[in-house]
Amino acid sequence: MHLIPLPNIPLIQPGDNLARLIIAASRRAKLTLTAADIVVVAQKIVSKAEGRLVRLAEVTPSARAHELAAITHKPAELVEVILWDTAEVIRAKPFLLIVQHKLGFISANAGVDHSNVSAEPGMVLRLPANPDASARAIRRDLAAELGVSPPVLVIDSHGRPWRFGTVGAAIGLSGLAPVQDLRGTPDLFGEPLQITDVGFADQIAGAASLLMGQAAEASPVVVVRGLPFEPNESAVAADVLRPKEMDLFR
Amino acid sequence: MHLIPLPNIPLIQPGDNLARLIIAASRRAKLTLTAADIVVVAQKIVSKAEGRLVRLAEVTPSARAHELAAITHKPAELVEVILWDTAEVIRAKPFLLIVQHKLGFISANAGVDHSNVSAEPGMVLRLPANPDASARAIRRDLAAELGVSPPVLVIDSHGRPWRFGTVGAAIGLSGLAPVQDLRGTPDLFGEPLQITDVGFADQIAGAASLLMGQAAEASPVVVVRGLPFEPNESAVAADVLRPKEMDLFR
Repeated sequence: MHLIPLPNIPLIQPGDNLARLIIAASRRAKLTLTAADIVVVAQKIVSKAEGRLVRLAEVTPSARAHELAAITHKPAELVEVILWDTAEVIRAKPFLLIVQHKLGFISANAGVDHSNVSAEPGMVLRLPANPDASARAIRRDLAAELGVSPPVLVIDSHGRPWRFGTVGAAIGLSGLAPVQDLRGTPDLFGEPLQITDVGFADQIAGAASLLMGQAAEASPVVVVRGLPFEPNESAVAADVLRPKEMDLFR
Repeated sequence: MHLIPLPNIPLIQPGDNLARLIIAASRRAKLTLTAADIVVVAQKIVSKAEGRLVRLAEVTPSARAHELAAITHKPAELVEVILWDTAEVIRAKPFLLIVQHKLGFISANAGVDHSNVSAEPGMVLRLPANPDASARAIRRDLAAELGVSPPVLVIDSHGRPWRFGTVGAAIGLSGLAPVQDLRGTPDLFGEPLQITDVGFADQIAGAASLLMGQAAEASPVVVVRGLPFEPNESAVAADVLRPKEMDLFR
């Protein structure tokens, strides 16, 4: 398996066509994308292309935002933006606000981000409104130009219970299922495996995250080559989410 | 970044020297290991080499094991083996037993495994007694033979709150730190990054897991090449663990 970061992706502006930039960068890298590749895209450039920047000075915090700001010591304007995308507050503590995003997953600050966002201070970036749709659009545009449809993952970094350190997580996808079911596959001794599901897309997201870094030299697009997968046209990122009633850790 | 599964690692027997088998397999793959590589080893072969198989018929369950077996519908002998390695039971429900392992991490069944364990029925496999020591021993033996010391990760697959699917997790390591701190690194616009820690070793574990699979064609050793890392001689796997008092999700 090879992971190839695409070099020299420019700073993204609202309205940019990411597929076109990915194709240009892959050509510079002498890389011919195929249907057997997987294209992993950092949510940050998707959000920027989709114009999801918010100027905090223009935000009017609600009473609930003021209340949570007092608990978390975060600016009330930032908390208000987080609440726009929040289905449910999971934990609020000093310097910590963990929520269930309206998209279903649980993460800090509903993915609203300060870093690498803008040269202008006081700007924050919301996640794409519909990351599965973003992934589908990139994939469709790649197919239109290249004639092949590699799966596309839109990924973010999530903190975790129990363990320090953020890890990549697929928040939008097109073309492959987030969970691979190995039940029934024979094991080394021919017995059916008892292991159940593998977090396939999230492990790909984590692998790509290693190369995206977070800093100046980072590349926001990584091509994964040489990893067999089952194509799946109907899967969505939310297929990975445990329903609340099956989740023991809220 | 390349991930190279080492082919044709034989079925492991108690007492096998894993470093010697890794070197033989890498030579067959025409791969010369260097200090810039990272060697990722599935815990299962480490446990087998260390003789951690248990015959359930020889286990006498305690009262507590019977009690948890009734709740979880697991065999009391299996629960007893799980309890040997358990510091604290986190959740017990039908078909589910999540514990804090004596090594500190939280996972299902304290990592005690049925699959790919033995051709003899009724055998289960405990995790290595000290996976950091196992990683150090493999690394020391590699260095003795090859004159170079690539970091070694011993990995397992863990389930997660909130999301379906198991993902790789580093339970033992030698030569690199499990968490990379990016605080203070300048971002794209020259501002210090606010992101804190990256789950570096776990993301490597997840990437390698993609190639280890769980089934007959799986390779239990994957070499990661082309990923920059900071060498660290004192890090241990437990450095990734949130102290109980800092953990909001137990």
